[in-house]
Amino acid sequence: MSTKKFPYNIEPWVTTDEHVEYTTNIFKVLKRDMRIESENHAATFSILDAPDWINVIALTPDNKIVLVEQYRYGTEVLTLELPGGVCDPGESPFESSKRELLEETGYSSEEWSSLGKVSSNPAMQTNHTHTYLAKNCIKTAEQQLDGNERINVHVLPLADFLDLVKTGEVDHSLVVAAIAKYLLIEGVG
Amino acid sequence: MSTKKFPYNIEPWVTTDEHVEYTTNIFKVLKRDMRIESENHAATFSILDAPDWINVIALTPDNKIVLVEQYRYGTEVLTLELPGGVCDPGESPFESSKRELLEETGYSSEEWSSLGKVSSNPAMQTNHTHTYLAKNCIKTAEQQLDGNERINVHVLPLADFLDLVKTGEVDHSLVVAAIAKYLLIEGVG
Repeated sequence: MSTKKFPYNIEPWVTTDEHVEYTTNIFKVLKRDMRIESENHAATFSILDAPDWINVIALTPDNKIVLVEQYRYGTEVLTLELPGGVCDPGESPFESSKRELLEETGYSSEEWSSLGKVSSNPAMQTNHTHTYLAKNCIKTAEQQLDGNERINVHVLPLADFLDLVKTGEVDHSLVVAAIAKYLLIEGVG
Repeated sequence: MSTKKFPYNIEPWVTTDEHVEYTTNIFKVLKRDMRIESENHAATFSILDAPDWINVIALTPDNKIVLVEQYRYGTEVLTLELPGGVCDPGESPFESSKRELLEETGYSSEEWSSLGKVSSNPAMQTNHTHTYLAKNCIKTAEQQLDGNERINVHVLPLADFLDLVKTGEVDHSLVVAAIAKYLLIEGVG
């Protein structure tokens, strides 16, 4: 499964058993029994299992970025974020990205590229978060929101948004990670 | 609690009740009852509650970065990451950063600065991850690892590390987010 190639030296742990301990509508908690074979050392870890997630860096023809304002239940604050969400069953990350951008903002694009993916949290989560870049986005539809979604769309100059990331006003880790990929792949400015 | 100041427009949800549903040694799952007062709209969300986390961008006098290789139980792969960990009870994020860098790598620094914090996942987590920059790091001690920790230290040219982030070889979202803060605050290169 791993395509990693950095010259790693450590002996991988081996998973000997796992089962679902607890289920919610957005994740499951697994108990995973693991061991280091050569040491005969075993331990059990709590793991969060969830579908993959996506987010989208959506730029307009005049280099503004399309953003979503929403209330976040974990930190109990309003946030400004990239459009994004959960990959539905059977849906590719690219399909999810097109769908979420359109549903949350009404914007669409004909010019998509992948900025790769990150592990949402390799220490304790199974899933990954994929980032797509959509250029020349235009508003082609109205929002279509789920039952608990209340989203305001903001369109800001990209430089202003990067400044909000720099100051910490924009602070969703998966959004900030997407910006790193953008800066490294697309270049700064 | 929030110090956010972007001109947000949406009505915040109000938390009406919460309780711990499930406990592990690294996080608790809360059930949080929330409502939008003006709409009389209520819902219950599953929230992950954990202590704050930290990571450290540790640079040597010759502009190399001090990294940790370890096996990650969530994604079941070896990873290359920034040193980091969990804030112990009563410990400030800065104290945690100094401790984790020393314990995991044996390196220490006299030149620390904050790169701010991110929300680990505002949609479903309560906690934040703080990033510190440590310059002129030198090796002053041996590693001191916890029972399940097996860590190899790597010291790479910073540019090589940034390239591993760009290609996705380094993919821990909280590490990639820390790099965004570094690029935006300290400048690229």
